[in-house]
Amino acid sequence: MSDYVFYIGYVAAACTSMSFLPQAIKVIKTNDTESLSIGMYSVFTFGVLCWLLYGVVLMDWPMIIANVITFTLAGIILALKVKHTFFTKKITKTP
Amino acid sequence: MSDYVFYIGYVAAACTSMSFLPQAIKVIKTNDTESLSIGMYSVFTFGVLCWLLYGVVLMDWPMIIANVITFTLAGIILALKVKHTFFTKKITKTP
Repeated sequence: MSDYVFYIGYVAAACTSMSFLPQAIKVIKTNDTESLSIGMYSVFTFGVLCWLLYGVVLMDWPMIIANVITFTLAGIILALKVKHTFFTKKITKTP
Repeated sequence: MSDYVFYIGYVAAACTSMSFLPQAIKVIKTNDTESLSIGMYSVFTFGVLCWLLYGVVLMDWPMIIANVITFTLAGIILALKVKHTFFTKKITKTP
């Protein structure tokens, strides 16, 4: 199999890992997580933790590195969503 | 290697694929994509398309199926975000 196939894999891994960076920056800047789904971020973060564990068992470093990045970013977003959902009083928006 | 390692992989794949379902349902129901990052969903959806292509080249059916599901769900969310960002007039929220 030619090398270009692996480039597709690298591009895919880079995109799906790094994509959570703009979302993390957005929630940190705006402090707004209203339209984010807590269900999505709970299941997704747990799933990424499983991928990380899978990478550790296989000792696959690209998989470990990609999932550490994704886990950190998704974890930040989830933590802020949990904080806003359970520990912050709702403020009614006024014009 | 024992089978349990593969179970970790299956759980991981199921979680990260299906996690976008509650988010897609939420944006369809509420029609609210305000706090979602268009940057995240653009890069993520493109990344998932690359994973799908990678799966097709390798003829890896579990990878193809998982990424078709994720691509569909992330694509719906991205389409609604794009619609709200570029094609919907902003409505000022009043109490």
